[in-house]
Amino acid sequence: MTSIFTRIISGEIPAAKVYEDALTLAFLDINPASRGHTLVIPKAELPGLLDLPPDLVAAMAHATQTVAQALMTALKPDGFNILQNNGQAAGQVVFHYHIHIIPRWAGDRAVGYWKPGSATADELRDLAALITAAVSKAGA
Amino acid sequence: MTSIFTRIISGEIPAAKVYEDALTLAFLDINPASRGHTLVIPKAELPGLLDLPPDLVAAMAHATQTVAQALMTALKPDGFNILQNNGQAAGQVVFHYHIHIIPRWAGDRAVGYWKPGSATADELRDLAALITAAVSKAGA
Repeated sequence: MTSIFTRIISGEIPAAKVYEDALTLAFLDINPASRGHTLVIPKAELPGLLDLPPDLVAAMAHATQTVAQALMTALKPDGFNILQNNGQAAGQVVFHYHIHIIPRWAGDRAVGYWKPGSATADELRDLAALITAAVSKAGA
Repeated sequence: MTSIFTRIISGEIPAAKVYEDALTLAFLDINPASRGHTLVIPKAELPGLLDLPPDLVAAMAHATQTVAQALMTALKPDGFNILQNNGQAAGQVVFHYHIHIIPRWAGDRAVGYWKPGSATADELRDLAALITAAVSKAGA
């Protein structure tokens, strides 16, 4: 069960690579939401954010910033989105961690967003207590 | 021109906080796309990803992973999205860097996506050359 991204890393499948370091690789999405839509991946085949060890979390963040800067320099978009989906319910299709960088031009409607919901201060306070307890339990 | 998030950090505006460390803070979005929709911010008021120094890029990535893990533990969603918008054209509204963590449940349609586009191998190769040159110029 080798992911399509691992096969890109190995060179078995071609890709338009834009950045590479010891731990990460970046290449253009073959079905781009916009011109320059890039994927940043770890060379290790790990499914989601929660599977990454600390050094890889940092390396992925660094690579993403580096590539985003290059996209802004090279293509001069008006902005960009960073998107990363964990789990099928969140729209993840390839189960090898990947960060989307999507250059944006004003009015391009390239990315859909969410409808803002609402919550009372009491609901948020109770929810925050649940989550804070889980942070503490993890010893963060 | 103090951002609404800086006013949350100072305590001037209340928020349902879920995580804090020396460099970052996380709290619940008051207009949540889903239950547990959380924002992670740097305490420094910087507008976008390209404005963050390396230590803050790493600290934000660490805080985001920590909070995402806590959200999964506390709320047991089926997955989650990480979203971060840079620039008005990309949907950024508050110009103080923030990462959205949006818990997802199967079929909730909480987040809209993009329509996959297409590009030829030649187009991608030419584009990759432009971007790779910009990476090299930055000395990454």
